[in-house]
Amino acid sequence: MSRTNRQILLASRPQGEATAANFKLVETPVPELAAGQVLVRNHYLSLDPYMRGRMNDSRSYAQPQPLNEVMIGGTVGEVVESKNDYFKPGDKVVGMGGWQEYQLVDAGQRGVLQKVDTTHIPLSAYLGAVGMPGVTAWYGLVKIIDPKPGETVVVSAASGAVGGAVGQLAKARGARAVGFAGGPDKCRYVVEELGFDACIDYKQHKGVRELAAALKEAAPKGVDGYFENVGGEILDAVMLRTNAFARIAMCGMIAGYDGQPLPLQNPAMILVSRLKIEGFIVSEHMQVWPEALKELGTLVATGKLKYRETLAEGIASAPEAFIGLLKGRNFGKQLVKL
Amino acid sequence: MSRTNRQILLASRPQGEATAANFKLVETPVPELAAGQVLVRNHYLSLDPYMRGRMNDSRSYAQPQPLNEVMIGGTVGEVVESKNDYFKPGDKVVGMGGWQEYQLVDAGQRGVLQKVDTTHIPLSAYLGAVGMPGVTAWYGLVKIIDPKPGETVVVSAASGAVGGAVGQLAKARGARAVGFAGGPDKCRYVVEELGFDACIDYKQHKGVRELAAALKEAAPKGVDGYFENVGGEILDAVMLRTNAFARIAMCGMIAGYDGQPLPLQNPAMILVSRLKIEGFIVSEHMQVWPEALKELGTLVATGKLKYRETLAEGIASAPEAFIGLLKGRNFGKQLVKL
Repeated sequence: MSRTNRQILLASRPQGEATAANFKLVETPVPELAAGQVLVRNHYLSLDPYMRGRMNDSRSYAQPQPLNEVMIGGTVGEVVESKNDYFKPGDKVVGMGGWQEYQLVDAGQRGVLQKVDTTHIPLSAYLGAVGMPGVTAWYGLVKIIDPKPGETVVVSAASGAVGGAVGQLAKARGARAVGFAGGPDKCRYVVEELGFDACIDYKQHKGVRELAAALKEAAPKGVDGYFENVGGEILDAVMLRTNAFARIAMCGMIAGYDGQPLPLQNPAMILVSRLKIEGFIVSEHMQVWPEALKELGTLVATGKLKYRETLAEGIASAPEAFIGLLKGRNFGKQLVKL
Repeated sequence: MSRTNRQILLASRPQGEATAANFKLVETPVPELAAGQVLVRNHYLSLDPYMRGRMNDSRSYAQPQPLNEVMIGGTVGEVVESKNDYFKPGDKVVGMGGWQEYQLVDAGQRGVLQKVDTTHIPLSAYLGAVGMPGVTAWYGLVKIIDPKPGETVVVSAASGAVGGAVGQLAKARGARAVGFAGGPDKCRYVVEELGFDACIDYKQHKGVRELAAALKEAAPKGVDGYFENVGGEILDAVMLRTNAFARIAMCGMIAGYDGQPLPLQNPAMILVSRLKIEGFIVSEHMQVWPEALKELGTLVATGKLKYRETLAEGIASAPEAFIGLLKGRNFGKQLVKL
């Protein structure tokens, strides 16, 4: 059976903001399977802020995305053909399939594809709460912030896949959870659906002083843990409100990806509050994934960990959906339905 | 016997830079000893950057120095009168005697005064390498940076009491030690006398890019640990040269004490290099002092930990000496001989 694969390549590197013109949609025939290979029809593609960093040709923790190759990305899908004993057509799998409809995989390589159970957990959740974003939240919260009951944990991008899980995991550990999100709808969702104690609409508070004042109201006992997804003024404001020995898990700085370095206004707070700040990349801590996924899977299967998804339709919509993600237009986990 | 005590009080808080006019010298009679009290003639007063922070009436990790009271400060001296069974005239002691010649102490309070042994260790060293600065160096290096053999440790203010010990302790652990210091004399001392592998004269390199270029030469394999005594452009430059998983012990930000907040130019490096940054105050970690002092005392007594002192003569010279310290005019540990 001859199949056509639609793929999105990185066509050029952004000058400043990323645009749809940096990407290119191509069609290529799917080759015949060789021995040991598996063909997966990707059903969902995950769009994540880290991809913006990979588009630049600059020093970072990861290699840049090569030009004219399929954009990297996490995917879930279904095995449609297999010349491998372990994988059978119909198996649901998670992997790094990239921005494309089909993924041809040498499935003998360990960890390239993993079967997942969709009895109690929806397939797409393996890209969100029970996948990389969930484990990211878990690692930063549990291994860096390590909140004690009664402490206050703050998270930016609180309605997102990572931020939403951070607050709910903090609540489960007896901490007060305070989010930052953009707009009244997201803030209402963060408090009413996800169960945070408070949420600050950062669009209503311009500048560090106003943000810090809003945080003083939402977190009257100060900040003991901060999970950073954004950077910039929110980070400056949170630092001003830190208690002694607060911990900051530095996960993302989406605000700085477009090239302008965003200074930290008051690093002396690191000394004043004796802060511990730690940057991390969850893929470098594979040893925690089984423990994290066990907790996250149980919470999702029992309805205790809530999340929301924004679905873009079809591979051609991925670039615009990704740019929307960078601008905060998504609501919850941004996926592309392929 | 009636004695007169000469004391220096904080007379006013600095507007911007601290000046000698912020201090006032007064003479007061030494009162008669009550039961349990000990009178100490202070021989040396330690001048330290943290005192500048205490002069401000702002939120910090410690209470501000009250106006019109004796400036706080570490001292070593000798018991001259005692109505306490444990202390005898002639005992050498270390304590927080303040900027004054005599200290009348209720010696029943635990930890207010500690006897020290000057058989193999000079009295003044208990204010430096075998005192708070030494333990500060030890804590940041051992407990935060924790260098592995072959790693590179960088320290600012490398000719100072803390910085000099950091580099020598790093060398003792098999690491490469690189210092920043101001001027060719200090840099020569850091390399030739203290045994650092390299020292960068920051006065010869203006701006973050030039400092980073100099550091690239002095630390060609990048930076694995940084002990921060200064803040500002040197910190920015070091961050640009950090290796993955580098640790930064944040001990001081002398450059920012005069009021202007000094931004950190590129906090995204925390994520790029997965840095761990930790602010600390050594007095909050009393549990490590015995272990640290044991190593430091042994190293000083055997001549393996070197240091230099700058002596100001007489209590009246303390304000000018302190301002010189803030401007980096001292060379090694700044003391006042009382």
